[in-house]
Parts: sequence; C-alpha cells; structure tokens
Amino acid sequence: MAESKKHEKQILAAFKKTGARIETKSRVKMKTKADFALYYTPGVGTMSTYLAEHPEEARTYSVKRNSVAVISDGTAVLGLGNIGPYGALPVMEGKALIFKEKADIDAWPIVLNITAIDPQERINEIVNTIMAIAPAWGGINLEDFSAPNCFEIEQRLIEALDIPVMHDDQHGTAIVTLAGLINAAKVTKKNFKKLKVVISGAGAAGVAITKLLRAAGIDDIIAVDRVGIIEPSRTDLNPVKQQLAEITNPRMVSGDLMNALIYADVFVGVSSAGLLSEDHIKVMAKDPIIFALANPIPEIMPGIARKAGAAVIATGRSDFPNQVNNALVFPGIFRGALDKGIRRITDDTKLRAAKALAALISNPTAEKILPDILDKRVVSAIAKSVR
Amino acid sequence: MAESKKHEKQILAAFKKTGARIETKSRVKMKTKADFALYYTPGVGTMSTYLAEHPEEARTYSVKRNSVAVISDGTAVLGLGNIGPYGALPVMEGKALIFKEKADIDAWPIVLNITAIDPQERINEIVNTIMAIAPAWGGINLEDFSAPNCFEIEQRLIEALDIPVMHDDQHGTAIVTLAGLINAAKVTKKNFKKLKVVISGAGAAGVAITKLLRAAGIDDIIAVDRVGIIEPSRTDLNPVKQQLAEITNPRMVSGDLMNALIYADVFVGVSSAGLLSEDHIKVMAKDPIIFALANPIPEIMPGIARKAGAAVIATGRSDFPNQVNNALVFPGIFRGALDKGIRRITDDTKLRAAKALAALISNPTAEKILPDILDKRVVSAIAKSVR
Repeated sequence: MAESKKHEKQILAAFKKTGARIETKSRVKMKTKADFALYYTPGVGTMSTYLAEHPEEARTYSVKRNSVAVISDGTAVLGLGNIGPYGALPVMEGKALIFKEKADIDAWPIVLNITAIDPQERINEIVNTIMAIAPAWGGINLEDFSAPNCFEIEQRLIEALDIPVMHDDQHGTAIVTLAGLINAAKVTKKNFKKLKVVISGAGAAGVAITKLLRAAGIDDIIAVDRVGIIEPSRTDLNPVKQQLAEITNPRMVSGDLMNALIYADVFVGVSSAGLLSEDHIKVMAKDPIIFALANPIPEIMPGIARKAGAAVIATGRSDFPNQVNNALVFPGIFRGALDKGIRRITDDTKLRAAKALAALISNPTAEKILPDILDKRVVSAIAKSVR
Repeated sequence: MAESKKHEKQILAAFKKTGARIETKSRVKMKTKADFALYYTPGVGTMSTYLAEHPEEARTYSVKRNSVAVISDGTAVLGLGNIGPYGALPVMEGKALIFKEKADIDAWPIVLNITAIDPQERINEIVNTIMAIAPAWGGINLEDFSAPNCFEIEQRLIEALDIPVMHDDQHGTAIVTLAGLINAAKVTKKNFKKLKVVISGAGAAGVAITKLLRAAGIDDIIAVDRVGIIEPSRTDLNPVKQQLAEITNPRMVSGDLMNALIYADVFVGVSSAGLLSEDHIKVMAKDPIIFALANPIPEIMPGIARKAGAAVIATGRSDFPNQVNNALVFPGIFRGALDKGIRRITDDTKLRAAKALAALISNPTAEKILPDILDKRVVSAIAKSVR
C-alpha cells in the first residue's frame, strides 16, 4: 500500500511537471505585417466569404481538415465509473496525445458538464451540445459515455452529422477484440465462425463486440450481464439488451455465467475484476480462449487462467502479453476517414479494420495474437482498410 | 476588379497550401511502453481519480492550464455580418494562431451551429452549449457574436463559469480604442477627461467603448446609431441602448451624426464604410481626432480626413498608420489571466490594460499613437496589468 501510494505520487508529479500533455502549434509564420495581412485581417475576410459560400470546403481550408474532438461526459471513465468531466479529462487528453503521436491527427479533449438528471434530457443535451460545436471538427471520437445512453447518443450524431462519429468504447474495443479473436482461433486451430463465444458484460463494449462478432460470421454467442444470461424471457432488459437477446443465444441456454460457459470456446470479459474463476474455465471446451479485458484488474489473472487450462489469454493491460487496447484502433480509423473524406464508419469498415490488424501478425502464437502499441505498421494498415 | 480577383485567388491558394493554420503538438514523448503506461493507461487512471476528487486542480494537471476556446456563432463576422459558422471559422482559427504566436496560449477555434431562430432561445442554446463544454478550458474568448445577443451571452457566462470569459469585439476593441485615445489626446494637447467624444455605432464595440471611456473618466460622450443620437426620448431603443442613453449625452443633443459632432473632439466609428464626410469633420472642434474603425473600409479614408483637418487619424487597417486592432489586446489579457488564475476581467483590468498599452509609446505622434502588432513588448505589458 505504501508502495502504491508512492507510485501514485510519482504519477501525479509527472503530470504536474508537464502540466498539459498536448499544446497547439502554428503551421504558418507570423513574423511580418504581410503575414498578419494574409493569415489574419484582411486576408482572412476573403477566406471567410469563401467558406460561407462553400461550407463543404472547410475540409480543405481549415482545421477541419485534420481535427478530431475527443468528447466525454465522464459517466463511464475507465473502470472508475461516473466520475464527472474533470475525472474524464486526463483520459481524453491522453487520447488526444495518442491521436497526435500515432496518426498525426489534431485532436483536442472536450469534457461535458451536463446538468440534466433525467436520462432522456441528458441524452438530448449531449446530442444538442455536440451538434452545436461540430462544424469545425473533421471527426468526433466519443469516449467513456455510459450505457445505454451511449447507443442513442452515437446513433443520433451519426445520422445528424456529415463527419465520422465513433464511440470508441464500443467500436474500438470491438475491432481490437475481433482482431485478437481471429488470431486466437488460429493459435488454437479452431474454426473461427464455429466458435462458441460467451461475452460477459452488456455495456457499451459488450454490445458492440456482440454485434461485430455476429457481423464477422460467428453465430453462437451468449451475452451475460450481472443478472445472468441475456434471453428474451427476461423482463428486466432495456431495449438495447432486448435487441441483444434477439441476436444471441441460439441454443437458448438459461442461467448464469457458469451455464453459459459449458463447452464454450471463448470467454470475452468486459465486465469486472475477478468475475471469472478456475471452475468457470474448467467447464469450457478444450483449449479455451480467455479475453479478460476488465481494467485495470481483469476478470481473472493470466497465471490462474493458464493453470486452469486456458490456451490463449489476453487482457487490457500492458504488463501481460496480448494487450487488447483501443489505442491500436482509433488512430488508424480516423486517419483513414480523414484522408478519404469518409463520413460513416460502417460495419464493413470495422470488419476490414479488424482483419487488417490481425493480418499484421503473420504467425500468431499464444503469447502474440496482436501487434504491440509501439508497432509502427498499425495505423497505416488500419487507415488503409477504411473505405 | 481583375486585380482584386487575382489577389483573392492568391489568398485562397495560401490557405489551401497550409490547410490548417494551427495543429496540436505532444508535450511528452510516447516512445516506450513505459510512456504509454504513465501518460495513458494505467497511469491516467490515477490522474483521473485525483481530478475527480480535486476538480479545481485541473488548472495544474491538464490542458486547462493554458487553453482558450475561441468561440463564435458566426452572426457578426468582421464586416461581413451573419455568415454562419463556416464563415466564422477562418477568423477563429486566425485568432487561435495569434494566441499561440503572441502569447504561447493553446487556443482552438469552435464555431457554433445554433438552429434556434427566436432570439432568447438562441441565447439560451449558446449559453448552455458553452457552459457544457467549459470544463477543459482555461478561458473563453467570445468572438463575432452579434449585438444585442452578445451582451446577455457574455454576462451569463461570466456569472456561471469560474474561468475568464471575454467578448473580444466588445472589450478588446474598447481597450485598444481607449489606449489610442489616451495618446491621441497627448498628441493634440487635449485634456483627456474633457474630451467630447462621439461614438458612431451602438453594437458590441460601440457599447463597450462607451462604457470603458466613461469608466476612464470621460463624461461627454454621445452615441449615435443608424437612426440618430441615442437619447431617452427615443422609443425604438432595445434595453442595451436604453442603458446607453442613460449614461451618455449629458448636453442632451438631439438629431443626427452631424448634430452630435458639433464641437466634438473625437469621432470613434465602429459603424460602416464611408459614413463620415469632410463636412462632418469641419463642424468638429479644433484638431479633431478621427478613429474610423469600420473594417475593411473605414468610415472615412485617412487622406480625406486629413484634408478636412483631422489631427490624428486611426483605422482598423494594417496599411495605414495607427492601426486599432484587437490583436494588440486579447493575447495579453488571457496570458495574464491564465498565469495569475484570474477569473474575471474587470473594468479596472481593462483600464489598466489600456494604460499599459498606451504607455508603450513614450512620445506619441500623429502617426504613432499605438504600438505595432509586431512589437514584442505588448503581450507582457498587458499581461502584467491583469490583476
């Protein structure tokens, strides 16, 4: 504990020293009166008149060309939960930093102070705010919005705006999970489309992973939330989970996580620390694949999972092999979308991105199913896959 | 005209070449896994937990330390009017560029797409949007919001937020105008507080100039709008102009601009091109001071004003002497406010800023009442004056 406190102090000291992890930078010189006359007044008047008449050309003539707003309302920050806009800010700033470092995208953190308490009013306020500030951005990366609000927020923004909008907790996670699973199936010599998959957690990530694995051709998926297996007979399901019940659980299994896992090939956990035990793994099929993605403490620690017979183990952490991390995905997705003027990130794009990511590992092994965050091929491979 | 078209093409080509005039830049290295572990996950979790508990420390640990949002709804862009968010974007981006170049402030342009038509609904939407996105910013620079909406918008944001909020069209213009007038009075050997001032234009700038000159001790101010002199007997005044009527026109002059100018020492135009004639100047007191600030075409061209007897002439343009330009003011005001954690830009600060700016010209002349935009002393002098 003392050690941990000391480590926390070191982290805060490092953040204090840098103050901000990103800043702005001029792309033109402002050294002479002629510079001011061109890039400020009166030159800017010509540019303003032009863009007022040709708003679609903002992509060519302004920051819109390469900018992404990283936006959160702070309701589902990491594993920390609803910690508000200031709690969310360090994560959004970190994402903006990664956007720049990995993909040379000009991203800026925007954290929302939304006062409405009623869920629908909250959704409306968030959607209205983001629509109002959208014109100058080339893309919008939604982050750490809690479920189920996140689904309606993302959907309405996608429909209303003419720029790419992606809720990374959903689709970034789904894409990197699918990529990892493609290679984990190779490692275990299992037929990918025949995989029996159990997804623990029916929040933003769980729902998006389910949908993307379905789109990738996997039919046998069981989703499990805190109450148990999600299935049509349950009366406590919100509309999103009702929809999930319709597209999952073809064998109509009932009960809890243990029931779901019998003969399953894959456990994908986007739920909570320590949820999975050795006993759970022991009821699974031969060579089970365990993606324990809860962060920072996974559903089961890799050592225990291995002892219980897991053939491939992935976590969200950087200190174990096979890190399943959104940061492998979002820089490339937006790089591709900005470069090609893509306005919607379709399921097809998500599938291609996952395949492109998986293909970077030519000989996957139990310890290496995904490229490293430092692998310089990742962004361009994913960007290329965006059409 | 062909020449002008050619010039416009050159401007557009320059903007197209740079694409964006600002970008983001990392302030930390992200070369190793340890970098990612510190500045992204899991390190960022410690920072998020800390800021959720100590939101006021976002000024120390995040982009909030040095960031300013440059926000417009595009309703009063330069002299171009209500040309919408995309029309406003080049100006806001230019201001963000100047913030960086002049004061090392990390500013980003945000242009608002506000759909409400009813004025009060519009104001509410704008205020709600800006309040919602405020947490990550160290300051908010409002720009090119039309009058009278701009007054309520600024006032409500100042009261609601704990960061400096300044509508630059009002206060930047007022501060630089006051600075210029202090030195113009010296040049003409007129007693500053006894100046008889006529202000043409009762929009954002006209109202703010009037108030700041009053605060600086000038009692004899007449404000004139399109209809004529603003005075209490008029029945067509909005609440802001009614307030103006109460604090101006002590000699109770009636009529039009010509009536207002009889024996006036100073004409300040923040109105429209060509409004002032030689005949107007001829009715003024000896050695009249003419600030013809309409942009890009002033109320009167300097050559004509001089021929009519003007002793000191200023415009908003960079191609004449005595450019009265907001860009002399806003970088220093926000630099000072950010450095000192100042939450409100008071009248007292505005007065001190104007005096500090004027004091940079030790021997003002008719051709040199204000420092140049390239003068490196300007930002620090104004920043020092902010308390």
